[in-house]
Amino acid sequence: MTAIHTAGGQADTLEQVIAGVHSYCRRNAGALVAELSDFVRVPNNVFEPEAIQRNARHLEVMLERRGFSTEQWPTPSGRPLVFAELPAPGASRTLLIYSHYDGVPVEEDAWHSNPYEPVLRDHAPLGADDDWSTISLPANGVYQPEWRLYGRSVADSKNALVAVLGAIDALRAQGRSPQVHLKLLLDGEEEEESPGLPTALTAHSERLAADLMISASGETHQSGRPTVELGMRGILLFELTVHTALVDLHSGHFGNFAPNAALRLAQLLSTLKHFDGTVAVQGFYDEVVPLSASEREALNAIPQLEPQLLERFGIARPEVTGRLLQELINQPTLNMRGLQGGFVGAAARNSIPRSATADIDVRLVKGMDPQRTFVRILAHVERQGYHVVDHPPTAEELRAHPWLVQATLKAGFRAERVPLDEPRAQSIVRAVTAATDPPVVVMPTSGGSLPIYLFAERGLPVISVPISNYDCNQHTADENLQLGFLFRAVAIFAALLSRMPE
Amino acid sequence: MTAIHTAGGQADTLEQVIAGVHSYCRRNAGALVAELSDFVRVPNNVFEPEAIQRNARHLEVMLERRGFSTEQWPTPSGRPLVFAELPAPGASRTLLIYSHYDGVPVEEDAWHSNPYEPVLRDHAPLGADDDWSTISLPANGVYQPEWRLYGRSVADSKNALVAVLGAIDALRAQGRSPQVHLKLLLDGEEEEESPGLPTALTAHSERLAADLMISASGETHQSGRPTVELGMRGILLFELTVHTALVDLHSGHFGNFAPNAALRLAQLLSTLKHFDGTVAVQGFYDEVVPLSASEREALNAIPQLEPQLLERFGIARPEVTGRLLQELINQPTLNMRGLQGGFVGAAARNSIPRSATADIDVRLVKGMDPQRTFVRILAHVERQGYHVVDHPPTAEELRAHPWLVQATLKAGFRAERVPLDEPRAQSIVRAVTAATDPPVVVMPTSGGSLPIYLFAERGLPVISVPISNYDCNQHTADENLQLGFLFRAVAIFAALLSRMPE
Repeated sequence: MTAIHTAGGQADTLEQVIAGVHSYCRRNAGALVAELSDFVRVPNNVFEPEAIQRNARHLEVMLERRGFSTEQWPTPSGRPLVFAELPAPGASRTLLIYSHYDGVPVEEDAWHSNPYEPVLRDHAPLGADDDWSTISLPANGVYQPEWRLYGRSVADSKNALVAVLGAIDALRAQGRSPQVHLKLLLDGEEEEESPGLPTALTAHSERLAADLMISASGETHQSGRPTVELGMRGILLFELTVHTALVDLHSGHFGNFAPNAALRLAQLLSTLKHFDGTVAVQGFYDEVVPLSASEREALNAIPQLEPQLLERFGIARPEVTGRLLQELINQPTLNMRGLQGGFVGAAARNSIPRSATADIDVRLVKGMDPQRTFVRILAHVERQGYHVVDHPPTAEELRAHPWLVQATLKAGFRAERVPLDEPRAQSIVRAVTAATDPPVVVMPTSGGSLPIYLFAERGLPVISVPISNYDCNQHTADENLQLGFLFRAVAIFAALLSRMPE
Repeated sequence: MTAIHTAGGQADTLEQVIAGVHSYCRRNAGALVAELSDFVRVPNNVFEPEAIQRNARHLEVMLERRGFSTEQWPTPSGRPLVFAELPAPGASRTLLIYSHYDGVPVEEDAWHSNPYEPVLRDHAPLGADDDWSTISLPANGVYQPEWRLYGRSVADSKNALVAVLGAIDALRAQGRSPQVHLKLLLDGEEEEESPGLPTALTAHSERLAADLMISASGETHQSGRPTVELGMRGILLFELTVHTALVDLHSGHFGNFAPNAALRLAQLLSTLKHFDGTVAVQGFYDEVVPLSASEREALNAIPQLEPQLLERFGIARPEVTGRLLQELINQPTLNMRGLQGGFVGAAARNSIPRSATADIDVRLVKGMDPQRTFVRILAHVERQGYHVVDHPPTAEELRAHPWLVQATLKAGFRAERVPLDEPRAQSIVRAVTAATDPPVVVMPTSGGSLPIYLFAERGLPVISVPISNYDCNQHTADENLQLGFLFRAVAIFAALLSRMPE
């Protein structure tokens, strides 16, 4: 048993600390939910810098209430990084936690409640026909762990800061305090691939010095088990816009004559993937670094839940069949985030769309380079007969090229992962294990993407401790957090702050 | 020369009447533009019944000012048909003019001016790089015929009523008056395929009795020549929505696993047409009635402008090559009006869309049945492996069918055309010829669609007299009317009102 010292000097075991934290969470569940709800009430659309700035001020107040010193690091987009420090007198080691407070835009008309006015449900409805009724906050202060709070960023990732602060409060309520210097780096533009992060990391590298770094966001494994992830995938975001004319034309007077950009786009997109779900772009998989034997072994230890997931999500058959989800997220993907051309529904009219756009994300695994992958995809587009430009085409270009596509690179960064036997990874697994009911799921990589290579190339390998339920609907309507996951995150952070992994 | 009688009894030739109308238009151009502009300032989105009702009241005032009796015929959607009558003392024959006053919804952000606040330009810009500057109303009251007025429904079709009333004003200013009983039927839901029209026609068949019926809307031939059309195509409007799951899923955590509805839709749509632009649906062309020898001859007499159109619209190559536009509009079409799934641009997020929708219009030519055509298209979809439903799928249906599409029939009606040698058609051609500079372009069918079969099956064959410039951008952004076309329409209606075609 490792001895833990309280502010008064008495020694306890980590188990006693965690028991105290659990008790604190039960007694203060209402306060935790209230602090998260207040935070969610500050709208945080990543595309609205002023909203992001209001969030930064809001969270600085939350931090200062606990004695953190805080500062804002401006970025060119006007969405600041917030850096905060809480020194621990006598501590010799430093923990840096990275998370973010911005959110994806709200999906108009798709939510069943106001995304910025959190509501509580005692079940997890799914689909239009389900029961979407809400429940009141409990008068007796008893919050069941299976209840869910619904709102934008409750799970991705305003819960991270609330859980860290809750851990500090829980320790202090027991007369204890963090045993490590704590630094927080809170991103305000993570949902737009953190364009300001590289410059900030270089400018403030000394301030960010730490012995260990944790990324606290994302979803735990679908089994609900506590999870540690040793890597993140990279990403490539781009748009393809097919252009066929200077103007939309009347479909009666010019149908059969004016080419339809929406149809052209559909034809082009259908060439990008085979019907078995694999990517048809030549060379797409060439640079994928295969998993090591020990990583394959780790994959096999992960619980297999495919049939339950298909049932829960209402999916009749996976896109790629015959392979485990864990294998699939260790492969790259190519995904249409969106497709738009002309008008549908009430806005539809009898026109031939002159342009149509697909927004695409590619998840990169270790070995793949974003730029080279983009070049391969453009080469594929050219092989379909398209002339590719990087700007809205001029009239002359339109008249010259019957098959014309505008390709726009939006963002890209590579994957990163630390080896399974990295000592810092193992010590984090031990801390998470101590704070929760084992077994902990250890994943060689998350399916998600964060630019953690930026930290890694500055000597700070990043290990992820995801804290939200897998079915939290992050990035879509009805985002929600199961309360048990909030309470568990408080315990995990309390363990990490109490016993510094050696 | 046919003798025309003024109110005072003096006889003039039709040529003299038209000369007087031209002179009236020159002197009163400002008043014509002002009356059209005031009408356009009443927003007329077809999907907003209250806006349509405001338009109905506005146009009733316009009509009553000229001595029409008016009444509103309600429809289930709340968008009334307005019926108006202006008897001509001593006249023996009745002319019924059909047009509409609703408009398609405004294309957000695509207009270069407020669609409901008309502006004037002395040129016709095209494309984002062009010069979109406007001009002031001329202080000297001289309006050039090549100038254009920009606003929603300036060309489709608020100009029709303004031109009819302008013709009456122009006759009266010369001391003349209409020589036929005039009836107007003004539709408030034409842009949504006139669902209330069939019932209204049956309920009010006696009120609508007429010797001749004209449809006054649409675009003249691209040559700018005055045009008479002897038919309209039918239409079939439907939506296809591919569903793959109950919920959008995170593209990192579930890419390769959750099927992407946008990709599926693209794959499905790309099967609907061959790369040569023809429709790949089995049996699609089976029932097309071939053109008669005389109709083929009429097609050959139509001016050929394909190279100029391609240049003007910035199109490098027509969808179907090697055939004249006039032939192409005598063939059926299948056109993606719109395509939407997930999110693009600023709204994009890293999700896998669970559903994606295509909105499609099919233009039907003589012989094709809307319902049978729809059935053929659904059979094609089924041959691609899809299970077709007519409702949003239940969770059970989603779990059971890996390829699932929801098909929604929105509207459909068949084509109609009168034979070239129909005497009423020939007499209208003569009136239009008298009012304008010949030659008049006579087209066996318009590319556009109107439910004129409803009138035809009640013994009122419909002949179309389109009055707007072909490049008026109807149904899309920057809709505009060339002023010369407004003045010419006044002259055409003055001729039709002055000399009843025998």
